Amino acid sequence: MVNLWFSERWSEDTKFSIRVKKHLYSEDTGFQKIDFYESTEYGRFFTLDGYIMLTEKDEFIYHEMITHVPMSVNPDIKNVLIIGAGDGGTLRELSRYKTIENIDMVEIDKRVVELCKEYIPSVASKFDDSRLKLYFEDGVKFVKEVKNTYDLIIVDSTDPIHVGEGLFTKDFYTDCYKILADNGILVNQHESPFYEEFSVEMKKAHDKLKDIFPITTVYQIHQPTYASGHWMLGFASKTLDPVKDQKEMEWENLKLTTKYYNPKIHKGAFALPNYVLEMLNK
Amino acid sequence: MVNLWFSERWSEDTKFSIRVKKHLYSEDTGFQKIDFYESTEYGRFFTLDGYIMLTEKDEFIYHEMITHVPMSVNPDIKNVLIIGAGDGGTLRELSRYKTIENIDMVEIDKRVVELCKEYIPSVASKFDDSRLKLYFEDGVKFVKEVKNTYDLIIVDSTDPIHVGEGLFTKDFYTDCYKILADNGILVNQHESPFYEEFSVEMKKAHDKLKDIFPITTVYQIHQPTYASGHWMLGFASKTLDPVKDQKEMEWENLKLTTKYYNPKIHKGAFALPNYVLEMLNK
Repeated sequence: MVNLWFSERWSEDTKFSIRVKKHLYSEDTGFQKIDFYESTEYGRFFTLDGYIMLTEKDEFIYHEMITHVPMSVNPDIKNVLIIGAGDGGTLRELSRYKTIENIDMVEIDKRVVELCKEYIPSVASKFDDSRLKLYFEDGVKFVKEVKNTYDLIIVDSTDPIHVGEGLFTKDFYTDCYKILADNGILVNQHESPFYEEFSVEMKKAHDKLKDIFPITTVYQIHQPTYASGHWMLGFASKTLDPVKDQKEMEWENLKLTTKYYNPKIHKGAFALPNYVLEMLNK
Repeated sequence: MVNLWFSERWSEDTKFSIRVKKHLYSEDTGFQKIDFYESTEYGRFFTLDGYIMLTEKDEFIYHEMITHVPMSVNPDIKNVLIIGAGDGGTLRELSRYKTIENIDMVEIDKRVVELCKEYIPSVASKFDDSRLKLYFEDGVKFVKEVKNTYDLIIVDSTDPIHVGEGLFTKDFYTDCYKILADNGILVNQHESPFYEEFSVEMKKAHDKLKDIFPITTVYQIHQPTYASGHWMLGFASKTLDPVKDQKEMEWENLKLTTKYYNPKIHKGAFALPNYVLEMLNK
Protein backbone atom coordinates (compact mmCIF):
# COMPACT_ATOMS: atom_id res chain seq x y z
CA MET A 1 0.00 0.00 0.00
CA VAL A 2 1.30 3.46 -0.89
CA ASN A 3 1.94 5.54 2.20
CA LEU A 4 1.13 8.86 0.58
CA TRP A 5 -1.18 11.22 2.45
CA PHE A 6 -3.03 14.35 1.38
CA SER A 7 -3.61 16.62 4.38
CA GLU A 8 -5.85 19.60 4.83
CA ARG A 9 -5.72 21.99 7.77
CA TRP A 10 -9.16 22.34 9.33
CA SER A 11 -7.76 24.77 11.83
CA GLU A 12 -4.29 25.85 12.89
CA ASP A 13 -4.23 22.79 15.16
CA THR A 14 -6.33 20.28 13.21
CA LYS A 15 -5.47 18.15 10.20
CA PHE A 16 -7.64 15.86 8.10
CA SER A 17 -5.71 13.38 5.98
CA ILE A 18 -6.61 11.02 3.17
CA ARG A 19 -4.38 8.23 1.95
CA VAL A 20 -3.81 8.75 -1.76
CA LYS A 21 -3.22 6.06 -4.34
CA LYS A 22 -2.12 8.51 -6.97
CA HIS A 23 -1.73 12.23 -7.50
CA LEU A 24 -3.34 12.35 -10.92
CA TYR A 25 -2.84 15.92 -12.06
CA SER A 26 -1.78 19.38 -10.95
CA GLU A 27 -2.10 22.74 -12.68
CA ASP A 28 -1.96 26.42 -11.88
CA THR A 29 -4.87 27.77 -13.89
CA GLY A 30 -4.00 31.42 -13.37
CA PHE A 31 -6.92 31.72 -10.99
CA GLN A 32 -5.98 28.93 -8.59
CA LYS A 33 -4.06 25.71 -8.18
CA ILE A 34 -6.08 22.62 -9.00
CA ASP A 35 -5.12 19.06 -8.08
CA PHE A 36 -6.78 15.72 -8.74
CA TYR A 37 -6.18 12.63 -6.59
CA GLU A 38 -7.19 9.00 -6.65
CA SER A 39 -7.95 7.28 -3.32
CA THR A 40 -9.44 4.01 -2.14
CA GLU A 41 -11.78 5.35 0.53
CA TYR A 42 -13.07 8.41 -1.33
CA GLY A 43 -12.65 7.55 -4.98
CA ARG A 44 -11.38 10.56 -6.88
CA PHE A 45 -11.21 13.95 -5.26
CA PHE A 46 -9.97 17.38 -6.22
CA THR A 47 -8.66 20.43 -4.41
CA LEU A 48 -8.44 24.15 -5.17
CA ASP A 49 -5.51 25.89 -3.51
CA GLY A 50 -5.14 22.84 -1.28
CA TYR A 51 -8.76 22.69 -0.06
CA ILE A 52 -10.95 19.70 -0.87
CA MET A 53 -13.79 20.73 -3.17
CA LEU A 54 -15.37 17.33 -3.46
CA THR A 55 -14.75 13.62 -3.13
CA GLU A 56 -16.70 11.02 -5.06
CA LYS A 57 -17.68 9.37 -1.77
CA ASP A 58 -19.59 12.25 -0.20
CA GLU A 59 -20.24 14.89 -2.89
CA PHE A 60 -23.86 13.69 -3.17
CA ILE A 61 -24.64 15.21 0.23
CA TYR A 62 -23.67 18.76 -0.63
CA HIS A 63 -25.03 18.68 -4.18
CA GLU A 64 -28.38 17.19 -3.22
CA MET A 65 -28.88 19.59 -0.35
CA ILE A 66 -27.92 22.72 -2.29
CA THR A 67 -30.45 21.93 -5.06
CA HIS A 68 -33.37 19.84 -3.78
CA VAL A 69 -34.08 22.14 -0.83
CA PRO A 70 -34.89 25.21 -2.96
CA MET A 71 -36.49 23.09 -5.70
CA SER A 72 -38.99 21.66 -3.27
CA VAL A 73 -39.80 25.04 -1.74
CA ASN A 74 -40.74 26.32 -5.20
CA PRO A 75 -41.40 23.56 -7.76
CA ASP A 76 -42.21 26.28 -10.34
CA ILE A 77 -38.60 27.34 -10.62
CA LYS A 78 -37.89 27.71 -14.33
CA ASN A 79 -34.97 30.07 -14.68
CA VAL A 80 -31.85 29.31 -12.65
CA LEU A 81 -28.49 31.00 -12.23
CA ILE A 82 -25.55 29.02 -10.87
CA ILE A 83 -22.42 30.87 -9.78
CA GLY A 84 -19.26 28.82 -9.48
CA ALA A 85 -19.86 25.06 -9.28
CA GLY A 86 -17.41 24.29 -12.06
CA ASP A 87 -17.28 20.63 -11.07
CA GLY A 88 -20.80 20.19 -12.43
CA GLY A 89 -22.37 18.55 -9.35
CA THR A 90 -24.99 21.23 -8.79
CA LEU A 91 -25.82 21.22 -12.50
CA ARG A 92 -26.16 17.42 -12.45
CA GLU A 93 -28.79 17.57 -9.71
CA LEU A 94 -30.68 20.52 -11.25
CA SER A 95 -30.78 18.89 -14.65
CA ARG A 96 -33.02 16.16 -13.18
CA TYR A 97 -35.91 18.67 -13.00
CA LYS A 98 -37.77 18.64 -16.32
CA THR A 99 -39.67 21.75 -15.24
CA ILE A 100 -36.55 23.91 -15.34
CA GLU A 101 -36.36 25.79 -18.65
CA ASN A 102 -33.06 27.63 -18.47
CA ILE A 103 -29.84 27.31 -16.52
CA ASP A 104 -27.24 30.08 -16.73
CA MET A 105 -24.00 28.96 -15.17
CA VAL A 106 -21.15 31.37 -14.51
CA GLU A 107 -17.79 29.89 -13.63
CA ILE A 108 -14.74 32.11 -13.55
CA ASP A 109 -12.26 29.32 -14.27
CA LYS A 110 -12.79 27.38 -17.48
CA ARG A 111 -10.10 24.89 -16.53
CA VAL A 112 -12.15 23.63 -13.55
CA VAL A 113 -14.93 22.56 -15.92
CA GLU A 114 -12.57 21.07 -18.49
CA LEU A 115 -10.55 19.14 -15.94
CA CYS A 116 -13.53 17.89 -13.95
CA LYS A 117 -15.02 16.55 -17.18
CA GLU A 118 -11.80 14.67 -17.73
CA TYR A 119 -11.03 13.48 -14.19
CA ILE A 120 -14.39 13.28 -12.38
CA PRO A 121 -16.97 12.51 -15.09
CA SER A 122 -19.39 11.05 -12.50
CA VAL A 123 -19.91 14.59 -11.27
CA ALA A 124 -19.26 16.66 -14.42
CA SER A 125 -21.86 14.64 -16.27
CA LYS A 126 -24.48 17.13 -17.46
CA PHE A 127 -22.62 19.84 -19.31
CA ASP A 128 -24.44 18.67 -22.44
CA ASP A 129 -27.85 19.64 -21.01
CA SER A 130 -29.53 21.69 -23.79
CA ARG A 131 -30.97 24.13 -21.22
CA LEU A 132 -27.49 25.15 -20.08
CA LYS A 133 -25.75 28.38 -21.04
CA LEU A 134 -22.23 28.33 -19.71
CA TYR A 135 -20.36 31.61 -19.17
CA PHE A 136 -16.70 31.68 -18.22
CA GLU A 137 -16.81 35.00 -16.43
CA ASP A 138 -16.56 36.61 -13.03
CA GLY A 139 -19.84 35.95 -11.23
CA VAL A 140 -19.63 39.30 -9.45
CA LYS A 141 -19.53 41.13 -12.76
CA PHE A 142 -22.18 38.89 -14.31
CA VAL A 143 -24.87 39.59 -11.69
CA LYS A 144 -24.15 43.32 -11.91
CA GLU A 145 -24.71 43.45 -15.64
CA VAL A 146 -27.14 40.70 -16.61
CA LYS A 147 -30.64 41.61 -17.79
CA ASN A 148 -32.65 38.66 -16.63
CA THR A 149 -34.92 37.58 -13.78
CA TYR A 150 -34.12 34.35 -12.00
CA ASP A 151 -36.29 32.17 -9.82
CA LEU A 152 -33.27 30.68 -8.13
CA ILE A 153 -29.62 31.64 -7.72
CA ILE A 154 -27.23 29.04 -6.35
CA VAL A 155 -23.84 30.32 -5.23
CA ASP A 156 -21.66 27.26 -5.06
CA SER A 157 -18.33 28.89 -4.33
CA THR A 158 -15.02 28.22 -2.65
CA ASP A 159 -14.25 29.81 0.71
CA PRO A 160 -14.11 33.62 0.83
CA ILE A 161 -10.46 33.82 -0.10
CA HIS A 162 -8.84 34.46 -3.50
CA VAL A 163 -11.34 33.86 -6.34
CA GLY A 164 -14.28 33.21 -4.00
CA GLU A 165 -13.96 36.45 -2.06
CA GLY A 166 -16.26 38.62 -4.16
CA LEU A 167 -19.07 36.09 -3.79
CA PHE A 168 -19.31 36.87 -0.07
CA THR A 169 -19.77 40.65 -0.34
CA LYS A 170 -22.82 42.79 0.32
CA ASP A 171 -22.57 44.27 -3.17
CA PHE A 172 -22.80 40.83 -4.70
CA TYR A 173 -25.78 39.80 -2.57
CA THR A 174 -27.52 43.09 -3.40
CA ASP A 175 -27.06 42.47 -7.11
CA CYS A 176 -28.43 38.93 -6.66
CA TYR A 177 -31.49 40.36 -4.90
CA LYS A 178 -32.15 42.70 -7.81
CA ILE A 179 -32.17 39.98 -10.44
CA LEU A 180 -34.36 37.58 -8.43
CA ALA A 181 -38.08 37.23 -9.11
CA ASP A 182 -40.57 38.26 -6.42
CA ASN A 183 -40.59 34.72 -5.06
CA GLY A 184 -36.89 34.24 -5.80
CA ILE A 185 -34.52 32.17 -3.68
CA LEU A 186 -30.78 32.49 -3.14
CA VAL A 187 -28.94 29.46 -1.80
CA ASN A 188 -25.24 29.68 -1.02
CA GLN A 189 -22.27 27.81 0.38
CA HIS A 190 -22.20 29.18 3.90
CA GLU A 191 -19.08 27.86 5.68
CA SER A 192 -19.15 26.11 9.06
CA PRO A 193 -19.80 26.92 12.74
CA PHE A 194 -17.21 24.79 14.54
CA TYR A 195 -13.74 26.09 13.77
CA GLU A 196 -13.29 29.82 14.17
CA GLU A 197 -11.57 30.21 10.80
CA PHE A 198 -14.87 29.23 9.17
CA SER A 199 -17.43 30.46 11.69
CA VAL A 200 -16.21 34.04 11.31
CA GLU A 201 -17.09 33.83 7.63
CA MET A 202 -20.41 32.11 8.32
CA LYS A 203 -21.44 34.95 10.61
CA LYS A 204 -20.29 37.65 8.18
CA ALA A 205 -22.18 36.12 5.27
CA HIS A 206 -25.34 35.77 7.34
CA ASP A 207 -25.17 39.34 8.62
CA LYS A 208 -24.85 40.71 5.11
CA LEU A 209 -27.72 38.63 3.75
CA LYS A 210 -29.95 39.64 6.68
CA ASP A 211 -29.63 43.28 5.71
CA ILE A 212 -30.88 42.57 2.20
CA PHE A 213 -33.36 39.68 2.19
CA PRO A 214 -36.61 39.58 4.22
CA ILE A 215 -36.15 35.85 4.88
CA THR A 216 -32.68 34.55 5.71
CA THR A 217 -31.74 31.35 7.40
CA VAL A 218 -29.08 28.70 7.39
CA TYR A 219 -29.33 24.92 7.17
CA GLN A 220 -26.86 22.22 8.02
CA ILE A 221 -25.52 19.10 6.40
CA HIS A 222 -23.28 16.24 7.51
CA GLN A 223 -20.39 16.61 5.06
CA PRO A 224 -17.53 14.44 6.36
CA THR A 225 -14.77 15.83 4.09
CA TYR A 226 -15.39 19.50 4.88
CA ALA A 227 -13.90 21.01 8.05
CA SER A 228 -15.58 19.53 11.16
CA GLY A 229 -18.13 17.64 9.03
CA HIS A 230 -20.71 20.19 10.11
CA TRP A 231 -21.35 22.38 7.09
CA MET A 232 -23.86 25.09 6.39
CA LEU A 233 -25.84 26.31 3.41
CA GLY A 234 -27.64 29.64 3.36
CA PHE A 235 -31.26 30.11 2.28
CA ALA A 236 -32.36 33.68 1.54
CA SER A 237 -35.57 34.70 -0.17
CA LYS A 238 -38.00 37.50 -0.78
CA THR A 239 -41.19 35.72 0.29
CA LEU A 240 -40.81 31.95 0.61
CA ASP A 241 -40.05 30.25 3.90
CA PRO A 242 -37.89 27.15 3.48
CA VAL A 243 -39.91 25.05 5.93
CA LYS A 244 -43.45 26.51 5.92
CA ASP A 245 -43.48 26.67 2.13
CA GLN A 246 -41.94 23.26 1.53
CA LYS A 247 -44.03 21.36 -1.07
CA GLU A 248 -43.48 17.92 0.30
CA MET A 249 -46.04 16.01 -1.77
CA GLU A 250 -45.18 17.75 -5.02
CA TRP A 251 -41.55 16.83 -4.56
CA GLU A 252 -42.41 13.23 -3.65
CA ASN A 253 -44.48 12.99 -6.83
CA LEU A 254 -41.41 13.72 -8.94
CA LYS A 255 -40.07 10.32 -7.82
CA LEU A 256 -36.46 11.47 -7.80
CA THR A 257 -34.04 9.01 -6.23
CA THR A 258 -31.76 10.67 -3.70
CA LYS A 259 -29.11 9.35 -1.36
CA TYR A 260 -29.23 12.05 1.30
CA TYR A 261 -32.14 14.41 0.69
CA ASN A 262 -35.70 13.59 1.69
CA PRO A 263 -38.58 15.81 2.84
CA LYS A 264 -37.96 15.02 6.51
CA ILE A 265 -34.28 15.89 6.47
CA HIS A 266 -35.23 19.05 4.56
CA LYS A 267 -37.10 20.22 7.68
CA GLY A 268 -34.57 18.71 10.06
CA ALA A 269 -31.66 20.55 8.44
CA PHE A 270 -33.12 23.90 9.48
CA ALA A 271 -33.16 22.90 13.17
CA LEU A 272 -29.88 24.36 14.41
CA PRO A 273 -27.95 23.82 17.65
CA ASN A 274 -28.12 26.64 20.18
CA TYR A 275 -24.47 27.57 19.78
CA VAL A 276 -25.00 28.10 16.06
CA LEU A 277 -28.18 30.11 16.60
CA GLU A 278 -26.32 32.34 19.02
CA MET A 279 -23.57 32.99 16.49
CA LEU A 280 -26.11 33.86 13.81
CA ASN A 281 -28.30 36.08 15.96
CA LYS A 282 -25.51 38.05 17.53
CA MET B 1 4.74 26.14 18.79
CA VAL B 2 5.20 22.46 19.60
CA ASN B 3 4.87 20.35 16.49
CA LEU B 4 3.43 17.32 18.27
CA TRP B 5 0.36 15.70 16.74
CA PHE B 6 -2.10 13.16 18.09
CA SER B 7 -3.63 11.17 15.21
CA GLU B 8 -6.63 8.87 15.12
CA ARG B 9 -7.51 6.60 12.21
CA TRP B 10 -11.10 7.19 11.11
CA SER B 11 -10.71 4.50 8.48
CA GLU B 12 -7.81 2.59 7.02
CA ASP B 13 -7.24 5.56 4.72
CA THR B 14 -8.34 8.49 6.88
CA LYS B 15 -6.56 10.28 9.70
CA PHE B 16 -7.77 13.01 12.03
CA SER B 17 -5.00 14.87 13.85
CA ILE B 18 -4.89 17.33 16.69
CA ARG B 19 -1.87 19.42 17.60
CA VAL B 20 -0.98 18.70 21.20
CA LYS B 21 0.62 21.11 23.65
CA LYS B 22 1.36 18.40 26.16
CA HIS B 23 0.84 14.69 26.69
CA LEU B 24 -0.33 14.94 30.30
CA TYR B 25 -0.64 11.36 31.42
CA SER B 26 -0.67 7.75 30.25
CA GLU B 27 -1.64 4.56 32.05
CA ASP B 28 -2.57 0.98 31.33
CA THR B 29 -5.47 0.41 33.72
CA GLY B 30 -5.66 -3.32 33.14
CA PHE B 31 -8.84 -2.77 31.13
CA GLN B 32 -7.51 -0.32 28.61
CA LYS B 33 -4.88 2.28 27.89
CA ILE B 34 -5.89 5.79 28.92
CA ASP B 35 -4.15 8.99 27.81
CA PHE B 36 -4.78 12.63 28.63
CA TYR B 37 -3.66 15.48 26.38
CA GLU B 38 -3.66 19.26 26.48
CA SER B 39 -4.34 21.16 23.25
CA THR B 40 -5.05 24.74 22.21
CA GLU B 41 -7.99 24.11 19.88
CA TYR B 42 -9.81 21.46 21.93
CA GLY B 43 -8.71 22.12 25.50
CA ARG B 44 -8.04 18.86 27.28
CA PHE B 45 -9.00 15.57 25.71
CA PHE B 46 -8.57 11.92 26.57
CA THR B 47 -8.37 8.66 24.66
CA LEU B 48 -9.03 5.01 25.45
CA ASP B 49 -6.90 2.58 23.46
CA GLY B 50 -6.03 5.47 21.14
CA TYR B 51 -9.59 6.59 20.39
CA ILE B 52 -10.80 10.04 21.42
CA MET B 53 -13.51 9.75 24.07
CA LEU B 54 -14.08 13.43 24.49
CA THR B 55 -12.55 16.85 24.02
CA GLU B 56 -13.49 19.84 26.14
CA LYS B 57 -14.40 21.75 22.97
CA ASP B 58 -17.19 19.49 21.72
CA GLU B 59 -18.18 17.08 24.52
CA PHE B 60 -21.28 19.19 25.23
CA ILE B 61 -22.86 17.99 21.98
CA TYR B 62 -22.75 14.28 22.78
CA HIS B 63 -23.60 14.67 26.46
CA GLU B 64 -26.51 17.00 25.90
CA MET B 65 -27.99 14.86 23.16
CA ILE B 66 -27.66 11.56 25.02
CA THR B 67 -29.52 12.94 28.07
CA HIS B 68 -31.92 15.75 27.15
CA VAL B 69 -33.57 13.78 24.35
CA PRO B 70 -34.88 10.98 26.62
CA MET B 71 -35.51 13.39 29.51
CA SER B 72 -37.82 15.50 27.38
CA VAL B 73 -39.69 12.47 26.03
CA ASN B 74 -40.48 11.42 29.60
CA PRO B 75 -40.07 14.21 32.17
CA ASP B 76 -41.25 11.75 34.86
CA ILE B 77 -38.01 9.78 34.71
CA LYS B 78 -36.98 9.17 38.31
CA ASN B 79 -34.75 6.13 38.33
CA VAL B 80 -31.82 6.09 35.90
CA LEU B 81 -29.11 3.58 35.10
CA ILE B 82 -25.94 4.74 33.35
CA ILE B 83 -23.59 2.13 31.90
CA GLY B 84 -20.06 3.29 31.16
CA ALA B 85 -19.67 7.06 30.98
CA GLY B 86 -16.77 7.12 33.42
CA ASP B 87 -15.81 10.62 32.33
CA GLY B 88 -18.89 11.96 34.12
CA GLY B 89 -20.37 14.01 31.23
CA THR B 90 -23.64 12.12 31.07
CA LEU B 91 -23.96 12.29 34.85
CA ARG B 92 -23.28 16.03 34.79
CA GLU B 93 -26.19 16.64 32.41
CA LEU B 94 -28.58 14.27 34.22
CA SER B 95 -27.81 15.81 37.59
CA ARG B 96 -29.41 19.03 36.36
CA TYR B 97 -32.85 17.40 36.59
CA LYS B 98 -34.22 17.86 40.13
CA THR B 99 -36.98 15.36 39.35
CA ILE B 100 -34.55 12.46 39.09
CA GLU B 101 -34.45 10.55 42.38
CA ASN B 102 -31.81 7.89 41.84
CA ILE B 103 -28.89 7.40 39.46
CA ASP B 104 -27.10 4.05 39.39
CA MET B 105 -23.90 4.30 37.42
CA VAL B 106 -21.90 1.22 36.45
CA GLU B 107 -18.41 1.80 35.12
CA ILE B 108 -16.09 -1.15 34.69
CA ASP B 109 -12.90 0.86 35.03
CA LYS B 110 -12.48 2.81 38.27
CA ARG B 111 -9.39 4.53 36.93
CA VAL B 112 -11.38 6.33 34.23
CA VAL B 113 -13.45 8.06 36.90
CA GLU B 114 -10.48 8.82 39.12
CA LEU B 115 -8.36 10.20 36.31
CA CYS B 116 -11.14 12.24 34.69
CA LYS B 117 -11.80 13.86 38.06
CA GLU B 118 -8.15 14.83 38.15
CA TYR B 119 -7.54 15.83 34.54
CA ILE B 120 -10.95 16.94 33.18
CA PRO B 121 -12.87 18.31 36.16
CA SER B 122 -15.11 20.40 33.88
CA VAL B 123 -16.73 17.13 32.78
CA ALA B 124 -16.25 14.92 35.85
CA SER B 125 -17.95 17.54 38.01
CA LYS B 126 -20.95 15.80 39.54
CA PHE B 127 -19.66 12.66 41.18
CA ASP B 128 -20.70 14.20 44.51
CA ASP B 129 -24.40 14.19 43.55
CA SER B 130 -26.18 12.62 46.52
CA ARG B 131 -28.54 10.68 44.24
CA LEU B 132 -25.63 8.81 42.66
CA LYS B 133 -24.69 5.22 43.45
CA LEU B 134 -21.47 4.37 41.67
CA TYR B 135 -20.62 0.72 40.96
CA PHE B 136 -17.26 -0.30 39.57
CA GLU B 137 -18.46 -3.45 37.86
CA ASP B 138 -19.08 -5.00 34.49
CA GLY B 139 -22.28 -3.46 33.10
CA VAL B 140 -23.18 -6.73 31.37
CA LYS B 141 -23.16 -8.59 34.68
CA PHE B 142 -24.90 -5.74 36.51
CA VAL B 143 -27.97 -5.65 34.26
CA LYS B 144 -28.27 -9.45 34.46
CA GLU B 145 -28.35 -9.47 38.24
CA VAL B 146 -29.82 -6.21 39.44
CA LYS B 147 -33.27 -6.18 41.06
CA ASN B 148 -34.55 -2.79 40.12
CA THR B 149 -36.80 -1.12 37.58
CA TYR B 150 -35.39 1.82 35.64
CA ASP B 151 -37.18 4.53 33.72
CA LEU B 152 -34.11 5.21 31.63
CA ILE B 153 -30.92 3.33 30.78
CA ILE B 154 -28.12 5.24 29.07
CA VAL B 155 -25.39 3.12 27.55
CA ASP B 156 -22.51 5.50 27.05
CA SER B 157 -19.85 3.06 25.95
CA THR B 158 -16.71 2.86 23.86
CA ASP B 159 -16.82 1.17 20.45
CA PRO B 160 -17.71 -2.54 20.38
CA ILE B 161 -14.14 -3.71 20.83
CA HIS B 162 -12.35 -4.82 23.99
CA VAL B 163 -14.22 -3.63 27.14
CA GLY B 164 -17.14 -2.20 25.19
CA GLU B 165 -17.94 -5.37 23.27
CA GLY B 166 -20.47 -6.90 25.69
CA LEU B 167 -22.52 -3.70 25.63
CA PHE B 168 -23.40 -4.31 21.97
CA THR B 169 -24.82 -7.84 22.36
CA LYS B 170 -28.38 -9.10 22.14
CA ASP B 171 -28.10 -10.64 25.60
CA PHE B 172 -27.21 -7.29 27.09
CA TYR B 173 -30.07 -5.48 25.32
CA THR B 174 -32.48 -8.21 26.44
CA ASP B 175 -31.41 -7.78 30.05
CA CYS B 176 -31.85 -4.01 29.71
CA TYR B 177 -35.37 -4.54 28.38
CA LYS B 178 -36.26 -6.68 31.39
CA ILE B 179 -35.22 -4.09 33.97
CA LEU B 180 -36.92 -1.18 32.20
CA ALA B 181 -40.31 0.14 33.34
CA ASP B 182 -43.30 -0.15 30.99
CA ASN B 183 -42.57 3.29 29.59
CA GLY B 184 -38.82 2.75 29.85
CA ILE B 185 -36.27 4.17 27.41
CA LEU B 186 -32.85 2.88 26.39
CA VAL B 187 -30.46 5.35 24.78
CA ASN B 188 -27.08 4.17 23.54
CA GLN B 189 -23.92 5.24 21.75
CA HIS B 190 -24.66 3.95 18.25
CA GLU B 191 -21.56 4.43 16.08
CA SER B 192 -21.59 6.19 12.69
CA PRO B 193 -22.90 5.63 9.16
CA PHE B 194 -20.09 7.05 7.00
CA TYR B 195 -17.01 4.85 7.34
CA GLU B 196 -17.63 1.14 6.96
CA GLU B 197 -15.64 0.26 10.10
CA PHE B 198 -18.33 2.05 12.10
CA SER B 199 -21.42 1.57 9.96
CA VAL B 200 -21.16 -2.20 10.23
CA GLU B 201 -21.48 -1.84 14.00
CA MET B 202 -24.27 0.72 13.70
CA LYS B 203 -26.31 -1.72 11.62
CA LYS B 204 -25.62 -4.68 13.91
CA ALA B 205 -26.65 -2.74 17.03
CA HIS B 206 -29.84 -1.53 15.36
CA ASP B 207 -30.79 -5.01 14.14
CA LYS B 208 -30.40 -6.46 17.60
CA LEU B 209 -32.41 -3.72 19.28
CA LYS B 210 -35.19 -4.05 16.67
CA ASP B 211 -35.71 -7.66 17.67
CA ILE B 212 -36.28 -6.73 21.30
CA PHE B 213 -37.87 -3.29 21.56
CA PRO B 214 -41.22 -2.29 19.97
CA ILE B 215 -39.88 1.19 19.18
CA THR B 216 -36.32 1.55 17.90
CA THR B 217 -34.79 4.41 16.05
CA VAL B 218 -31.55 6.27 15.68
CA TYR B 219 -30.78 9.97 15.87
CA GLN B 220 -27.82 11.96 14.66
CA ILE B 221 -25.50 14.57 16.04
CA HIS B 222 -22.75 16.77 14.61
CA GLN B 223 -19.76 15.60 16.67
CA PRO B 224 -16.62 16.96 14.99
CA THR B 225 -14.08 14.86 16.90
CA TYR B 226 -15.74 11.49 16.26
CA ALA B 227 -15.11 9.71 12.96
CA SER B 228 -16.73 11.63 10.05
CA GLY B 229 -18.36 14.09 12.46
CA HIS B 230 -21.67 12.31 11.77
CA TRP B 231 -22.45 10.32 14.89
CA MET B 232 -25.50 8.35 15.93
CA LEU B 233 -27.33 7.66 19.16
CA GLY B 234 -29.92 4.91 19.50
CA PHE B 235 -33.36 5.40 21.04
CA ALA B 236 -35.28 2.23 21.97
CA SER B 237 -38.39 2.07 24.09
CA LYS B 238 -41.37 -0.01 25.06
CA THR B 239 -44.09 2.57 24.37
CA LEU B 240 -42.77 6.11 23.94
CA ASP B 241 -42.02 7.60 20.54
CA PRO B 242 -39.08 10.02 20.64
CA VAL B 243 -40.77 12.60 18.44
CA LYS B 244 -44.53 12.13 18.93
CA ASP B 245 -44.13 11.93 22.69
CA GLN B 246 -41.69 14.79 23.03
CA LYS B 247 -42.86 17.13 25.84
CA GLU B 248 -41.59 20.34 24.35
CA MET B 249 -43.28 22.80 26.69
CA GLU B 250 -42.51 20.84 29.84
CA TRP B 251 -38.85 20.78 28.91
CA GLU B 252 -38.84 24.49 28.06
CA ASN B 253 -40.35 25.22 31.46
CA LEU B 254 -37.33 23.69 33.17
CA LYS B 255 -35.30 26.62 31.81
CA LEU B 256 -32.14 24.56 31.39
CA THR B 257 -29.39 26.33 29.48
CA THR B 258 -27.97 24.17 26.69
CA LYS B 259 -25.38 24.80 24.01
CA TYR B 260 -26.54 22.25 21.44
CA TYR B 261 -29.88 20.74 22.45
CA ASN B 262 -33.20 22.48 21.91
CA PRO B 263 -36.68 21.13 21.18
CA LYS B 264 -36.34 21.78 17.44
CA ILE B 265 -33.04 19.96 17.02
CA HIS B 266 -34.55 17.14 19.10
CA LYS B 267 -37.04 16.56 16.26
CA GLY B 268 -34.53 17.37 13.53
CA ALA B 269 -32.02 14.83 14.81
CA PHE B 270 -34.44 12.00 14.03
CA ALA B 271 -34.66 13.04 10.35
CA LEU B 272 -32.07 10.80 8.74
CA PRO B 273 -30.50 10.84 5.27
CA ASN B 274 -31.73 8.21 2.82
CA TYR B 275 -28.42 6.35 2.77
CA VAL B 276 -28.59 5.92 6.54
CA LEU B 277 -32.24 4.83 6.43
CA GLU B 278 -31.34 2.23 3.84
CA MET B 279 -28.57 0.83 6.02
CA LEU B 280 -30.89 0.62 9.01
CA ASN B 281 -33.84 -0.90 7.21
CA LYS B 282 -31.91 -3.52 5.31
